[in-house]
Amino acid sequence: MAGSTLGTIFKITTWGESHGKALGVVIDGCPAGLPLDEGQIQAFLNRRKPGQTAIATPRKEDDSVKILSGIFEGKTTGAPISMMVENNSQRSHDYSQIASCYRPGHADFTFDEKYGFRDYRGGGRSSGRETIGRVAAGAVASLILKQMGIQLTTFTRSIGPISISEERFDPECIRSTPTAMPDPIASKEAEAYLKESMAAFDSVGGVIECRVTGLPTGLGDPVFEKLDANLAKAFVSVGAVKAFEIGEGCHASRLRGSENNDGFTIEEGKITKVTNHSGGTLGGISDGSPLLLRAYIKPTPSIFSPQQTVNSKKEEVTINIKGRHDPIIVPRAVVVIEAMAALTLMDALLLNMTAKLDSVVNFYKN
Amino acid sequence: MAGSTLGTIFKITTWGESHGKALGVVIDGCPAGLPLDEGQIQAFLNRRKPGQTAIATPRKEDDSVKILSGIFEGKTTGAPISMMVENNSQRSHDYSQIASCYRPGHADFTFDEKYGFRDYRGGGRSSGRETIGRVAAGAVASLILKQMGIQLTTFTRSIGPISISEERFDPECIRSTPTAMPDPIASKEAEAYLKESMAAFDSVGGVIECRVTGLPTGLGDPVFEKLDANLAKAFVSVGAVKAFEIGEGCHASRLRGSENNDGFTIEEGKITKVTNHSGGTLGGISDGSPLLLRAYIKPTPSIFSPQQTVNSKKEEVTINIKGRHDPIIVPRAVVVIEAMAALTLMDALLLNMTAKLDSVVNFYKN
Amino acid sequence: MAGSTLGTIFKITTWGESHGKALGVVIDGCPAGLPLDEGQIQAFLNRRKPGQTAIATPRKEDDSVKILSGIFEGKTTGAPISMMVENNSQRSHDYSQIASCYRPGHADFTFDEKYGFRDYRGGGRSSGRETIGRVAAGAVASLILKQMGIQLTTFTRSIGPISISEERFDPECIRSTPTAMPDPIASKEAEAYLKESMAAFDSVGGVIECRVTGLPTGLGDPVFEKLDANLAKAFVSVGAVKAFEIGEGCHASRLRGSENNDGFTIEEGKITKVTNHSGGTLGGISDGSPLLLRAYIKPTPSIFSPQQTVNSKKEEVTINIKGRHDPIIVPRAVVVIEAMAALTLMDALLLNMTAKLDSVVNFYKN
Amino acid sequence: MAGSTLGTIFKITTWGESHGKALGVVIDGCPAGLPLDEGQIQAFLNRRKPGQTAIATPRKEDDSVKILSGIFEGKTTGAPISMMVENNSQRSHDYSQIASCYRPGHADFTFDEKYGFRDYRGGGRSSGRETIGRVAAGAVASLILKQMGIQLTTFTRSIGPISISEERFDPECIRSTPTAMPDPIASKEAEAYLKESMAAFDSVGGVIECRVTGLPTGLGDPVFEKLDANLAKAFVSVGAVKAFEIGEGCHASRLRGSENNDGFTIEEGKITKVTNHSGGTLGGISDGSPLLLRAYIKPTPSIFSPQQTVNSKKEEVTINIKGRHDPIIVPRAVVVIEAMAALTLMDALLLNMTAKLDSVVNFYKN
Repeated sequence: MAGSTLGTIFKITTWGESHGKALGVVIDGCPAGLPLDEGQIQAFLNRRKPGQTAIATPRKEDDSVKILSGIFEGKTTGAPISMMVENNSQRSHDYSQIASCYRPGHADFTFDEKYGFRDYRGGGRSSGRETIGRVAAGAVASLILKQMGIQLTTFTRSIGPISISEERFDPECIRSTPTAMPDPIASKEAEAYLKESMAAFDSVGGVIECRVTGLPTGLGDPVFEKLDANLAKAFVSVGAVKAFEIGEGCHASRLRGSENNDGFTIEEGKITKVTNHSGGTLGGISDGSPLLLRAYIKPTPSIFSPQQTVNSKKEEVTINIKGRHDPIIVPRAVVVIEAMAALTLMDALLLNMTAKLDSVVNFYKN
Repeated sequence: MAGSTLGTIFKITTWGESHGKALGVVIDGCPAGLPLDEGQIQAFLNRRKPGQTAIATPRKEDDSVKILSGIFEGKTTGAPISMMVENNSQRSHDYSQIASCYRPGHADFTFDEKYGFRDYRGGGRSSGRETIGRVAAGAVASLILKQMGIQLTTFTRSIGPISISEERFDPECIRSTPTAMPDPIASKEAEAYLKESMAAFDSVGGVIECRVTGLPTGLGDPVFEKLDANLAKAFVSVGAVKAFEIGEGCHASRLRGSENNDGFTIEEGKITKVTNHSGGTLGGISDGSPLLLRAYIKPTPSIFSPQQTVNSKKEEVTINIKGRHDPIIVPRAVVVIEAMAALTLMDALLLNMTAKLDSVVNFYKN
Repeated sequence: MAGSTLGTIFKITTWGESHGKALGVVIDGCPAGLPLDEGQIQAFLNRRKPGQTAIATPRKEDDSVKILSGIFEGKTTGAPISMMVENNSQRSHDYSQIASCYRPGHADFTFDEKYGFRDYRGGGRSSGRETIGRVAAGAVASLILKQMGIQLTTFTRSIGPISISEERFDPECIRSTPTAMPDPIASKEAEAYLKESMAAFDSVGGVIECRVTGLPTGLGDPVFEKLDANLAKAFVSVGAVKAFEIGEGCHASRLRGSENNDGFTIEEGKITKVTNHSGGTLGGISDGSPLLLRAYIKPTPSIFSPQQTVNSKKEEVTINIKGRHDPIIVPRAVVVIEAMAALTLMDALLLNMTAKLDSVVNFYKN
Repeated sequence: MAGSTLGTIFKITTWGESHGKALGVVIDGCPAGLPLDEGQIQAFLNRRKPGQTAIATPRKEDDSVKILSGIFEGKTTGAPISMMVENNSQRSHDYSQIASCYRPGHADFTFDEKYGFRDYRGGGRSSGRETIGRVAAGAVASLILKQMGIQLTTFTRSIGPISISEERFDPECIRSTPTAMPDPIASKEAEAYLKESMAAFDSVGGVIECRVTGLPTGLGDPVFEKLDANLAKAFVSVGAVKAFEIGEGCHASRLRGSENNDGFTIEEGKITKVTNHSGGTLGGISDGSPLLLRAYIKPTPSIFSPQQTVNSKKEEVTINIKGRHDPIIVPRAVVVIEAMAALTLMDALLLNMTAKLDSVVNFYKN
């Protein structure tokens, strides 16, 4: 198993390497009848494009998506949706150094150990370019979620030590700041911090937050297929994510029960929680409150200072990474995290339809 | 899907409710030839038994395991291993209050929303007793891992604000302190903190850490089936876990690349990392370093103070939970987290055997 | 993988060996709200009980089912339904001969090759008793199908060379003839044939047919998850089944297109097929016509004449099988085939609910 | 779920419609290190190409395959192998008739029922062109099987009433006769039969047989994942297959135990069966004998005579199918059936590696 398939009903399979002919994704199990065109997918892909700001790699990646199957007369047919991005803009490089050396913080060593050799060009299969397939599929899921009144808001919560302020939170800024922060003042501070780090030939980590509103109750299954468990897997499956939190997250471990419990109340005739420490699930099932999710991202491992490492001949060497690498992964990864949330929620929405026998019987009566 | 099955090759299915006739697990896909008896499973189950210390519920749960299938002449046969614990010691209770009320922090409300009604006795399917099946299955996985030289050390890292000290770390203490802390001084402090909290009719959260040594390189698959992604799912699928970390975890988001990268070196002829900020994986594949994993656990939601809530008729009510609940989940959950790690690693070990064509061809040559 | 789990949403896991402590099944993913008690399951299990007629083994098997979880206040809760039959009536035997010998037509040799050894008592995991779990789970599926107006009629179509006559077809007879034939005259002939075969210490094969009416259109998915493909797998997974047919089956290979095609017409305002050569599916999706399915069953491999074989020391030996074996598997396997059909249809019914986006959107609107 | 993914370890996902931009397949889980190029895949695809003989459609399909990922320096890397065939040669058609009418024997009606509408151009997703992905993936599986000494021989066993003679069996003829029959005399007769049928504007069915030699013992798992059960699913998932047989197949139902059982003997120090009525499996696990498998194929549903049908407005109409359809599916489907066998065996080979604990322990020792 190479592990490139995710989901039970809404199932995606990504393929492609950084410097291969193309990268893509197949969505199997998308319900029939969704209006879909390439422009809608492209809008999501453009959010992960590099070369757009001073704090991202100046590398150009065109990343123009083609839909190859699964659409007829402008709508999904229920058949697999195959989408592809051709690798037109990969520069030809001198890979002699990384071909034999193991870059610290990268998967070079583990790929060689697992498979016996690796496609070393630009990180091969473990490149961030693999997320193109995730984002394209996530776009389709997001369009369905949107049609159902489910809204995902994903943004950079912090960069290094600089965090956004809840008071200044402005979702409109997410797409306008280069940091994807919803707080222009924090964003400016973060940009300054980043520039300082770039001047030191170093890189920086950060935190991405995803908030989901409008979600129905009942999503997720008890025991192993808890909604938060699948969100944890989906987020941590993104290359550089080192921690996952829901609701109070780590902080819950320091609270008392009386502080962390969310009382229930009635609001407009509906049962609702007074607070949302839980972050939108109880017992692994969505409770109707907003989902509050966070992914903690490590600093880009490719830095421009000399690093100690070894090569595949087991010789100690010093590596000097060259190329055009992002000094921070976070802003470009925002849409990747959003895609992973959308995919997980989409699958949970479809799986939840069979929970009650009444629903099943009624479905076939009509 | 009720979500009670986990794993691809080493696949487990748990069943049972808190106050039903029995709880159990079926392991399908355990390799044939492992010596196994009930005593070995019982030893693991005893680690999650309540009623053993002053800081756990005085409730007695006998939890005596029977193996019903899959063993012949003292060894696993490759057939499913069915294990069962009968519910002998459940007191008969007055459930009239929780039958209609939604306890804050519990899954009562979401179960009703999802399934239309619920088994309210002792939490039903979402009770902590569900983990009996996980621990019994985890025991089997652990026995195999042990045979392969893989060692799991799992312990309480902190309780509320009190953390262990790395300097005083003594693995021998994990089983002897009531807190499962490997540091007797921190354990004493934590006990005092817990007693104070119990006196206030309140509960406390904490952190569990799991360290794995002796793991071969190559476990985990790129993209969605990363080893850390599956560990995240496994951990967050345990009821009260609100966050997952590997290696530097959340802290990585505040580090620079030069601080977080682990250089490689040669030690005794083997490639190894100089540091282990990554926590044992690179690109989602085990790198031969120890796995460093943490689960953040919320305070027990059942507290003995009045709480605001609603009932299923949408009336606001005050609930006073009675019964014998743990003031903290953490010490008893240590073996549950260890079980989840063992199960995830076991499946990854089996899945990794097909990564190289050479290995496959050689396997069938011999 | 030991292969004991079947299904995507309505998922079953069987466990147990012929002479172990018990056998059972866990159903995960049964919708909540189905009224269910042990008597309903027992009625299905009784149909596969031996010792009931002159043409079945005189062996007594009590096979009394217990439901251990998943039911509350008489209804399924959505949690796993664990069911168990204890092995009370297994005689203690002298197994020294079959412990080392490979019985022709049995799985003894292949189990040893695959797992290195085997539980040889009564066939171990490959015993027909394994189907107890299938039938218990199939009973639950059948109860849901019945509630939806879907009717399964399963019967013995032929025994050795003797087939039923369509003209004399009387479904009432299926449960009253010892052969499970819906034709009392053919049944008498078959009994005579069987007695003759038993007198010759030999065994006999036959054909089971399953007809399903009331099935909605749309079940099954294109490509690999065709409804007939999954029915084929389900049927051939039953021990002695050597062939599977749908509709014209083998015979279709000798027909011309003009003979085999089913024209469409309008009947009571509904599109329907004029004929049903296809057997109820088109392109792997149910077409609203009755499903017509057949399983071809080999003669019982345990015969009471000496047979040439080898032992595990690679010595040629003659084996004389003793015990109380059925001279024919077919009548007792009728309910097993019906169970496999019911399980496959149940899963397909649940999976089909997400085919159209409209259905999904409407589901969550209400 | 649209059902386009097959396999547990060696997992394939096909996509594409008859007249879309392209069709393809992603293989996930192919072991690393297999030398692979497009020419090897093309050789398999050429075996299903139309337009090559007088008894196939004169339609030209170029079907030129591109490998888009998963290969580096001429070998598989363990990453997904994405393969694509562009649809260059689809004629532009007048689809007004089949857009609204339901062709007898086709999936038009069931697709509309399931998904609400369909891509009607050339059969859309249920076209035979979907098998391009299966054959391309099957080619990869076959190359690995070949390297392991496993040989698949697949051929036309009969066309309408004309069957090959075992005495004249010549495997060399399979690729040289237009019928794919390994018997030139039967092939000539079949050609005459086909021409007669074509002259009557009618179509013909037939039988494909697949024989596999060199297979190790131990493949397949007891219970639901029996090797023959998965082969049955794989074969019946091919569009026009109406029956599946292994070994004696249907005929076994008429045999006595003494006739159908295969005795064991010792040959060259190895345990082997004296006969092979079972067709290569016992208890669902490969027994070291050749696999003997048969698929029964219905006549092509597209015939050139007027047929009674209805349209989507529920009006009865007469349809006259035009176009360039094969008068028989069988010869072109031979390579499809072989691909399905190869894929199923490949997955079973990989899954079997974890059956014994010794093998697992030894694997990680080396």
